[in-house]
Amino acid sequence: MRVAVVGTGLVGGSLAAALRRLDDVAEVVGADRDEGAVATALARGLIDRAAPGAAEAAEGADLVVLAVPVSAVEAAAKEVGSVLAPGAVLTDVASVKARLVPAMEAAVAPGVSVIGGHPMAGSHEGGAAHATPDLFVGATYLLMPTASTDPDAYRRLHGLVSRVGARVLAVDPARHDLLVAVTSHLPQLAATTLMNLAADRAREQDAELLLLAAGGFRDATRVAASNPDLWLDICAQNRDAIVAVLDDYRERIGSLRSLLSVGDDVGLRRELADARAARRALPGKESVTGVLVELHLPIPDRPGVIAEVATGVGSVAVNIEDIAVEHDPEGGRGTLRLAIVGEEQAARARAALESRGYDVLEHRP
Amino acid sequence: MRVAVVGTGLVGGSLAAALRRLDDVAEVVGADRDEGAVATALARGLIDRAAPGAAEAAEGADLVVLAVPVSAVEAAAKEVGSVLAPGAVLTDVASVKARLVPAMEAAVAPGVSVIGGHPMAGSHEGGAAHATPDLFVGATYLLMPTASTDPDAYRRLHGLVSRVGARVLAVDPARHDLLVAVTSHLPQLAATTLMNLAADRAREQDAELLLLAAGGFRDATRVAASNPDLWLDICAQNRDAIVAVLDDYRERIGSLRSLLSVGDDVGLRRELADARAARRALPGKESVTGVLVELHLPIPDRPGVIAEVATGVGSVAVNIEDIAVEHDPEGGRGTLRLAIVGEEQAARARAALESRGYDVLEHRP
Repeated sequence: MRVAVVGTGLVGGSLAAALRRLDDVAEVVGADRDEGAVATALARGLIDRAAPGAAEAAEGADLVVLAVPVSAVEAAAKEVGSVLAPGAVLTDVASVKARLVPAMEAAVAPGVSVIGGHPMAGSHEGGAAHATPDLFVGATYLLMPTASTDPDAYRRLHGLVSRVGARVLAVDPARHDLLVAVTSHLPQLAATTLMNLAADRAREQDAELLLLAAGGFRDATRVAASNPDLWLDICAQNRDAIVAVLDDYRERIGSLRSLLSVGDDVGLRRELADARAARRALPGKESVTGVLVELHLPIPDRPGVIAEVATGVGSVAVNIEDIAVEHDPEGGRGTLRLAIVGEEQAARARAALESRGYDVLEHRP
Repeated sequence: MRVAVVGTGLVGGSLAAALRRLDDVAEVVGADRDEGAVATALARGLIDRAAPGAAEAAEGADLVVLAVPVSAVEAAAKEVGSVLAPGAVLTDVASVKARLVPAMEAAVAPGVSVIGGHPMAGSHEGGAAHATPDLFVGATYLLMPTASTDPDAYRRLHGLVSRVGARVLAVDPARHDLLVAVTSHLPQLAATTLMNLAADRAREQDAELLLLAAGGFRDATRVAASNPDLWLDICAQNRDAIVAVLDDYRERIGSLRSLLSVGDDVGLRRELADARAARRALPGKESVTGVLVELHLPIPDRPGVIAEVATGVGSVAVNIEDIAVEHDPEGGRGTLRLAIVGEEQAARARAALESRGYDVLEHRP
């Protein structure tokens, strides 16, 4: 398999390095507008070869990863779209998706599978110099198959992402943007607001205020140091979802303020205790352990099925360990085999699939 | 010097251990309502001796540290107040102060100096088992002298706190509560709100939502796991300041939402960039380096002076490295010597003191 990575910064460089370690990846070619980034990636052994541009890197590739900023994904997709052959897979790592996935699909020829990607992994330190093949170990990696995604193409990308150590969760692109508005975009804007409130007060009233910034304040404002231009792009791409989440957040801050001002200790304690319980229950990087259960689904042989099945399982927060597609020799239909770890997880996945009208058989290998 | 520490949990136990290492501390006695905590403190060598109660520990002590929860400080002050002799110093480590410092003063005999304390240091892991004498190294430690604090008593406590590695900043108790409402209480309640918003949505709509919680969300919600009962006490003690800060925060969230919804990219970028600059400029644990400057102030020999001078220097965010008090042999007046590191810091401190009507002479030893 030949892989092209366009954009060899932290995420692209790390993914290149991780894929390069796999036996069935023959070559990883890198390209970056920033000549220094691609030179660093080459010097650090993250890629096998540097190409002068995105199209040159993508020539003959089986998988192309666009690891460029949100605002550059569409243009990069057009560059590589002209050279990708049917059967190839195009993915990205951008943190907003509802507009980008259709734009990527519009940029490629029929027969090329577009599968949006979003690894929930990063680092405070950007750039190829900090890239590491272990960046994705234990991280959640979102994949966004669409109605035109070929099941075999999805299976291949799912397999690669699993083998670099990530837990794959399939989501619909529009749903993805609603989810990250809560888990990523709101925390960013809340941190920005908190930091500016404190800095303004320090400047206007209390010079000593920021000397009191201990661990809690530092944690709560850490992401406020992020790159403003990247966030401007994200805000523009996901405006409606972020505005709705900010409204919800503002209303909740108001409710908490009311509990406090009227001295409703029972209500206030409930809020504090609920948040504590939820924070402690936050899923860690530990993977679920348990028996391996295989779910077998007879499926019609049409592209939309893989998106429906994978996002259906993702919607109940279940990780698919492995996917196999068996095409019926007579054509027209086949069997999808999903490997799930844990009885409880398998039961949740089965229920989600049955509610979508699939027949599901359980096997314990 | 004999020291009593009432409450040998994380902060009390750490302070006991740090003070025990100092040459001029002859004995550190510990007491705790929880027998297990004081036994652990003794077994780990954090204290020299365990006393059965607060009053027994405080008997004959030159310094008593109340390291109990906010809601227990007043009762503990009454217990030790009955046994403290004139010349002794009573301090605490509670995170709210405007009500507690006067309550502590009311609990002690004339001649006992009450100096509120608040070390800006902690750990996710509480209890004597996690106490360490290095907890305060590089941390900001707030001291709150009052109008009745004796300058020599302040100098002694300031010296001890400096010698356990902390940077002392003097603030007025009421001002302290306004400052921590911003740097500690708002981050707590913002984290609580963010966590509950995400958990409610995960429960009601999107089971997979919390699997997307990556580093940014984890950082922003870390303090949401704090003890609800401690926070209920803090909210009750600092209600007005917290309500005012929540109003400011909510208004700012609304402004950011407006910038986003109307697509004001210039305004939005300014918010993001301002926050980034402020977060990057957040003072670290590194201490200021530079030449040592001594400021000499002729002062009237009356108690309120030390509070005025120390909090005046604190209000411009300058750390006093060392304090000496020279009483004039003829009485009635004396000289206060303040050691400040850094020319710029010394100039700021001098300006703050001159604006309060003090004559200030600079010496470079």
